[in-house]
Amino acid sequence: MAEKIRQAEIQRVAEDRREAVDDVVAVEEPLEIQVGSASADGAAARSVSITMRTPGHDEELALGFLFTEGIIGSASEVRSVATLGEPDPETGLKNRVRVELEAGVNLNLDKLERHFYTTSSCGVCGKASLDALRNEGCTSLAGVATHYSATMLTQLPGRVRASQAVFNQTGGLHAATVFGSDGEILVVREDVGRHNATDKAIGALFRAGRIPAHDLGLLVSGRASFELVQKCLAAGIPLLAAVGAPSSLAVRTAEDFGMTLVGFLRGGTFNIYAGSERID
Amino acid sequence: MAEKIRQAEIQRVAEDRREAVDDVVAVEEPLEIQVGSASADGAAARSVSITMRTPGHDEELALGFLFTEGIIGSASEVRSVATLGEPDPETGLKNRVRVELEAGVNLNLDKLERHFYTTSSCGVCGKASLDALRNEGCTSLAGVATHYSATMLTQLPGRVRASQAVFNQTGGLHAATVFGSDGEILVVREDVGRHNATDKAIGALFRAGRIPAHDLGLLVSGRASFELVQKCLAAGIPLLAAVGAPSSLAVRTAEDFGMTLVGFLRGGTFNIYAGSERID
Repeated sequence: MAEKIRQAEIQRVAEDRREAVDDVVAVEEPLEIQVGSASADGAAARSVSITMRTPGHDEELALGFLFTEGIIGSASEVRSVATLGEPDPETGLKNRVRVELEAGVNLNLDKLERHFYTTSSCGVCGKASLDALRNEGCTSLAGVATHYSATMLTQLPGRVRASQAVFNQTGGLHAATVFGSDGEILVVREDVGRHNATDKAIGALFRAGRIPAHDLGLLVSGRASFELVQKCLAAGIPLLAAVGAPSSLAVRTAEDFGMTLVGFLRGGTFNIYAGSERID
Repeated sequence: MAEKIRQAEIQRVAEDRREAVDDVVAVEEPLEIQVGSASADGAAARSVSITMRTPGHDEELALGFLFTEGIIGSASEVRSVATLGEPDPETGLKNRVRVELEAGVNLNLDKLERHFYTTSSCGVCGKASLDALRNEGCTSLAGVATHYSATMLTQLPGRVRASQAVFNQTGGLHAATVFGSDGEILVVREDVGRHNATDKAIGALFRAGRIPAHDLGLLVSGRASFELVQKCLAAGIPLLAAVGAPSSLAVRTAEDFGMTLVGFLRGGTFNIYAGSERID
């Protein structure tokens, strides 16, 4: 846990009082993700992303990022994954992860140009973004019959919070939690960014050969954007629940791809924006 | 305002009750930012970014993005900025902005590769990120003598919320507010993303020739990351206040560049993480 928080000397201001106190903040440091591949043309390695993240589960973050972005398709394509380099003398962190692909696996870096330049007549719009997901092979989860109880869902945020020591200290970390339809908490990953926390959680499933995860659900501590819905869809997770609000395109994507989308899951209540038939 | 929210038919679940209600969600749609430039080699145009944003103030978003990323340096480099194309028949939105540069202005697209591949001996780390900012010409604001009163700061979030109609409806929009050191609210911009809201607010200052904005402050509704501190630094804004928590690298960047960083500004209290001498 130690690498996730850092001491900070702050001043706390309240009405006429001002006092110096010791506090802690969530760590944010850059991580470089490299992909190496050996093809007929010889070996090649490329830096594909630098993301600002909270250290911890960096290998899962790299795998989850590459998988949910469509750059790699399955665990069988990955020969190895490792953190690289000497630890930074100042922070003790290694800030580089290299994912080595099996011989012959093509590195589909076009995917990094993202989901938006595409096929719809309107060019750049929400509809084009959904068409792009279809073109990338994302398929509807409408036929997935997993059910979740409303009572289990309302209890989940409190149960996660109880286990989320760092968040309670800093207030600065998001959490992404993978849970079973029976409410069992399987994976909790934390990060200053919701996308990174989600990539770490899905990366853990990817590494464990648990994808498509048709029997699981994902809870995120913030809001539900298009990208988070898209990541769940890539992982075959039929339910995304957010403590905060969803966006219009998150709702539309969930509707179009047969996912269940829950928002404002807090204080014992929630809203269902799509796929209500899965909630008992 | 209408383009910022969309109707949604949802189910609201509380204990044993479940009812269908009409609700609203914040709109999220892609925006493509294009840059056109005429140089000695002839005219050229390039798509430099597609971002998921809430429609509204798209031209300011484009200008703020290009400026805070270091791709353009001042308003005098911009010949024109316009939304492009026919409105999408489905949403009525134009999702493309084109910024045309004056003849002879070089388009510095290397900057899009971001601030991280750099000069520090440790390669990829927080220190390298700060070195990169220095190399890009970001200078310390330590000499900027603007002061802000603690009472003004504690009243600010409530005053912004009162004017932020859409956020109150959807709970799904972030706000970035530019204010004077006397507390006058000058610019409020909303978006599903904090970075976009900040780019819109800084884009408004950029367009109005108000940069460097040494006499102003910026309030964001969420957390304070490295990138938000970096954007304020680019705009010469000496104080960033966040309703949520700052990250370690946000604190360190503010310290290194002489900025004031306030966090947890809510309920009449706040924490000062850097630059406390500016708070009276």
